[in-house]
Amino acid sequence: MSRRDLHDRMAHAIRFLAIDAVEAANSGHPGLPMGAADIATVLFSETLKFDATQPTWPDRDRFILSAGHGSMLLYSLLHLLGYESLPMDELKRFRQLGSLTPGHPENFVTPGIETTTGPLGQGISTAVGFAMAERLMAARFSADIVDHRTVVIASDGDLMEGISQEAIDIAGHMKLAKLTVLWDDNRISIDGPTSLSGSTDQQARFAASGWTTLAVDGHDPVAILAALKTAYASDKPTLIACRTVIGFGSPAHAGSSKVHGSPLGAAEIEATRKALGWEAGPFEVPQDARDGWLDAGRKGVAAREAWQARFDALPEADRAEFERRMRGELPSAALAEAIAAVKAKAVADGNAVATRKSSEIVLDAITKAVPEMIGGSADLTGSNNTRAKGQKAVTPDDFDGTFIHWGVREHGMAAAMNGLALHGGVIPYSGTFLAFADYSRPAIRLAALMGERVVHVLTHDSIGLGEDGPTHQPVEHLAALRAIPNLLVMRPADTVETAECWQIALEAKDRPSCLILSRQNLPLLRQADAENKAAGGAYELIAASSEAQVSLFATGSELSLAVEARALLEAEGVPTRVVSVPSFELFLARPLAERRAVIGKAPAKVGIEAAIRMGWDSIIGSDAAFVGMTSFGASAPAKELYRHFGITPQAVVGAALEQLRQS
Amino acid sequence: MSRRDLHDRMAHAIRFLAIDAVEAANSGHPGLPMGAADIATVLFSETLKFDATQPTWPDRDRFILSAGHGSMLLYSLLHLLGYESLPMDELKRFRQLGSLTPGHPENFVTPGIETTTGPLGQGISTAVGFAMAERLMAARFSADIVDHRTVVIASDGDLMEGISQEAIDIAGHMKLAKLTVLWDDNRISIDGPTSLSGSTDQQARFAASGWTTLAVDGHDPVAILAALKTAYASDKPTLIACRTVIGFGSPAHAGSSKVHGSPLGAAEIEATRKALGWEAGPFEVPQDARDGWLDAGRKGVAAREAWQARFDALPEADRAEFERRMRGELPSAALAEAIAAVKAKAVADGNAVATRKSSEIVLDAITKAVPEMIGGSADLTGSNNTRAKGQKAVTPDDFDGTFIHWGVREHGMAAAMNGLALHGGVIPYSGTFLAFADYSRPAIRLAALMGERVVHVLTHDSIGLGEDGPTHQPVEHLAALRAIPNLLVMRPADTVETAECWQIALEAKDRPSCLILSRQNLPLLRQADAENKAAGGAYELIAASSEAQVSLFATGSELSLAVEARALLEAEGVPTRVVSVPSFELFLARPLAERRAVIGKAPAKVGIEAAIRMGWDSIIGSDAAFVGMTSFGASAPAKELYRHFGITPQAVVGAALEQLRQS
Repeated sequence: MSRRDLHDRMAHAIRFLAIDAVEAANSGHPGLPMGAADIATVLFSETLKFDATQPTWPDRDRFILSAGHGSMLLYSLLHLLGYESLPMDELKRFRQLGSLTPGHPENFVTPGIETTTGPLGQGISTAVGFAMAERLMAARFSADIVDHRTVVIASDGDLMEGISQEAIDIAGHMKLAKLTVLWDDNRISIDGPTSLSGSTDQQARFAASGWTTLAVDGHDPVAILAALKTAYASDKPTLIACRTVIGFGSPAHAGSSKVHGSPLGAAEIEATRKALGWEAGPFEVPQDARDGWLDAGRKGVAAREAWQARFDALPEADRAEFERRMRGELPSAALAEAIAAVKAKAVADGNAVATRKSSEIVLDAITKAVPEMIGGSADLTGSNNTRAKGQKAVTPDDFDGTFIHWGVREHGMAAAMNGLALHGGVIPYSGTFLAFADYSRPAIRLAALMGERVVHVLTHDSIGLGEDGPTHQPVEHLAALRAIPNLLVMRPADTVETAECWQIALEAKDRPSCLILSRQNLPLLRQADAENKAAGGAYELIAASSEAQVSLFATGSELSLAVEARALLEAEGVPTRVVSVPSFELFLARPLAERRAVIGKAPAKVGIEAAIRMGWDSIIGSDAAFVGMTSFGASAPAKELYRHFGITPQAVVGAALEQLRQS
Repeated sequence: MSRRDLHDRMAHAIRFLAIDAVEAANSGHPGLPMGAADIATVLFSETLKFDATQPTWPDRDRFILSAGHGSMLLYSLLHLLGYESLPMDELKRFRQLGSLTPGHPENFVTPGIETTTGPLGQGISTAVGFAMAERLMAARFSADIVDHRTVVIASDGDLMEGISQEAIDIAGHMKLAKLTVLWDDNRISIDGPTSLSGSTDQQARFAASGWTTLAVDGHDPVAILAALKTAYASDKPTLIACRTVIGFGSPAHAGSSKVHGSPLGAAEIEATRKALGWEAGPFEVPQDARDGWLDAGRKGVAAREAWQARFDALPEADRAEFERRMRGELPSAALAEAIAAVKAKAVADGNAVATRKSSEIVLDAITKAVPEMIGGSADLTGSNNTRAKGQKAVTPDDFDGTFIHWGVREHGMAAAMNGLALHGGVIPYSGTFLAFADYSRPAIRLAALMGERVVHVLTHDSIGLGEDGPTHQPVEHLAALRAIPNLLVMRPADTVETAECWQIALEAKDRPSCLILSRQNLPLLRQADAENKAAGGAYELIAASSEAQVSLFATGSELSLAVEARALLEAEGVPTRVVSVPSFELFLARPLAERRAVIGKAPAKVGIEAAIRMGWDSIIGSDAAFVGMTSFGASAPAKELYRHFGITPQAVVGAALEQLRQS
């Protein structure tokens, strides 16, 4: 069989597995797998470096299907290449409960999937993080050990999403030469031809950001291979515009939006079989195609073995460090020691500092203890206080740094952070203002869904930021972040709690964290307990002078306000305790009896947070009082705003006494 | 005085008012007003069409400062041009509580401000909506009546935000020739030179999307004027890259990030006075500059009077229609009649339909009754069901349509919708999946802050969308949207409620709405009451057979599930009532006594929604039971998912009986 014939057979095997699985599920997207099968076949059989028997080989090339709706392309490939985890039975259970073949690719479900995609624009942007991680790890461990590519198939929709521009900007600026984007240029989106809504010259757009750009016939394997070789030789990231026909092979629907997201139906499947000369039945793979793909799946074995030999020849300390990092384990003891030292010094100093500054103090210590931490900021470095002493900036020509200037690109930053974490070997953290977490929300959600350790430092966390006004003042953002499943939201009250929250964030290997920090100075309230008290989510900071009549619950900048209110209440003869609540999620995960003990039995309860009440009832109950915000903020000095919106010790006292009267 | 000298004096007046106000507030951003003063002076004194005595003249040019942190540029201009609403005293109260000069420009605070900016990227994207509105209104009322420009000053940060790419794509595709963006190309962002984080060739980037691009010295008034004339003559939108020096005039800080967001300080202000030859004291404007600006403020009077004469010559019906639309008033009676007819027919038909389809049925009727409605979808037209019968698509060459294909650009769409609403004369609505509301969240928040009537149709509202899996299944999105102040979130349960919610959305002149709609079919549950029952936020759908032991509360697709559960409970002898809760916000705005009457006194209460509990306690109390989601969803057919996650009538019955036992 000629090389071209074999190519066609292999590509058709992808096409028909996709057609059959979508048909069986009566749901799914056959158009992309059919259209992009030729690109994928060249990529996986000729250029990508991987070993199907070792899906987690650290130096494998990373492949990302940004257009996640074409998941059957990935599942077909993994199955055909011989990934043991994906037998044909799983393809037959496409989109069924508990299968390894969900509607969109989920890296936490299916071995061999690098990242979860589906929300458009995320894959291409996450890929930037993968490509950066490769360069960062190569700078640390040498190109002998870390030298692989990140290759993306992206759709028209991916390129329409604004996040893709942020990704393109960052990748071009950073000269991520080992990043290659194959654009499935089929000129069809769900509404019809892409000309309905856009006329951007994508090659010119990528070129404007410093990319090499090429265009090929996406059904010509020779041209695709030549383009990939050019891309691989470039010193810049490369876009290859692959002109394809969506639903290639379907006589009635090829080139039409009808084939994007609907099963072909029995008659059209039969017509497609005839058109493509495909004799096999549903879910059957002819032996020639099967053999071609199994060969492709084994091609990387030699490269992987050669890599292993190089790796084994490393000094033991380097091997151990590499393996520790790739396992995502923290350096034993070093972090805990650094945290303990920060807590002790904070208590000794007793200074009032903003928790964003507390975080900087913590970072000065822990970035030394945990050298795989990669910091950054979306152009607010001095405001987020995310750059630790001695952190060198990463530049296009030098990846031996640990701090990234992301520019005003919160969304691209958050997606790239996901890629850094998914690649492994580094722990990304970065900052912006809490109000602008809205910009990165889709990527933060994906981190929570995937269970990735990324740390978002979100400063200027309330009306306490003052004069910048309501556009910059978070009011609903704490609630909105707490709403995301598996996301850890922590709002520490002083330097000791900030240190504890950083420790929790780094030790939470399987979930993202948000550290919610103040712009304004806050007094030190804690002693340097050996115990990480924040880890329980809530704890009694100050007991009542006798049996408590009032329990005050507060987070972050409002904890000191609760302490002031307690003094006023105690002065009036009302025994009052104060409970610090740095994290709802950690608290709510505890057994009911423990929670009840922390909540206590005082007849009056008041929650205090310079934000909306939503979510608080799960802690204090809907009968408790709450002192916080019920509207957007305003532009004025912070102290005036606290008075204006009635978030004062006096208001807390009033609310507590009113509760007592009613009880 | 030479023209150039007068220009300099006028520009310096802006600079020093900005310097003085920031110094007085000890907070703010002098860098941009100082750097962009020359651009603004040319623009406002030579080319913009406006009349300072009539800030709301419908045919004025719209000016948008996308870089909202430079708000003192705007306030200085408005004051100098003679806007009566902004006397010098207000400039002295920059960033103080209750002033007309908040930290970032707020259109709802300061007459003459077109839109709220500050979150970067929003201004330039909102401007696209303004420019589209102009073309839509011109197509309806002729270019004699509607013929104005939209001019933006945008910063480096605006162009780094991904949303700007979506805006650029849309504007270029739609050939919005009357949109001009003046890029304040000062090459400085907060972290330092923009070369730290980017190297995109912005002119090439805009050109790739079909824009005319020019570059000028941003301190050369002759060059700026010439560029504006070229831009105004172009048949495409135009980017003018204006090379400027941030903090122009400050000997020590010009060209440095230090001047971006901090007061200059007394010594440096004095040095700047010397450098620019400025003799006036703080908040003083020399007479020559004052006269020059007042002349500029009066230049538009003749144009406005000529417009008024043309307008007065229109047929009375056209005048009335134009004025009605610009006031934002609905056609009297027509909407209510259309809604009543839809409700009656839905009840007569009795069909089970998805609420997204119900919404389409409503739209078929009301887009005829309310012709200023401009629909759209982010490339999910057939899934969001937002295109009504007979709605013609808007195309680059024909704005006589009422439906916009936005492409996969949720964020740019939402910002442009804000611009459409702010311009006036049209009422924008558009659709995407609820999960992707996260992409447009920053723009939705701004709509809520500004109090603009935009309607977001958000379909596929739960695990009920089925096989697409957790990336596409909203779980926390209802809570996250309900968290935004002033946003109306409505989740109707059948066609009757959907019609009522549409009526509420259109009649809510001063707030945005989200209509949360199902993918799956839902039975008709309501009678065609004349009353808009959804307007109360919650109401009893079915009474208990005798004194209620159980109250079931549900929204949207879970209301029919509550009805099923009620039947089971009543069959077991437990009198049970069902309360429909289409909108939390509307319900919580009612007097306590009314709310208590709706909530009722049944000892057992159960909330039911295929989403997280957050927010529900404000309705049913934290002691009530809740049947919903506590994690991300999964990929499987919808019915299986409801079973898998335990959202079934049986689960509701179990929760209700357990509550009864405990009561």
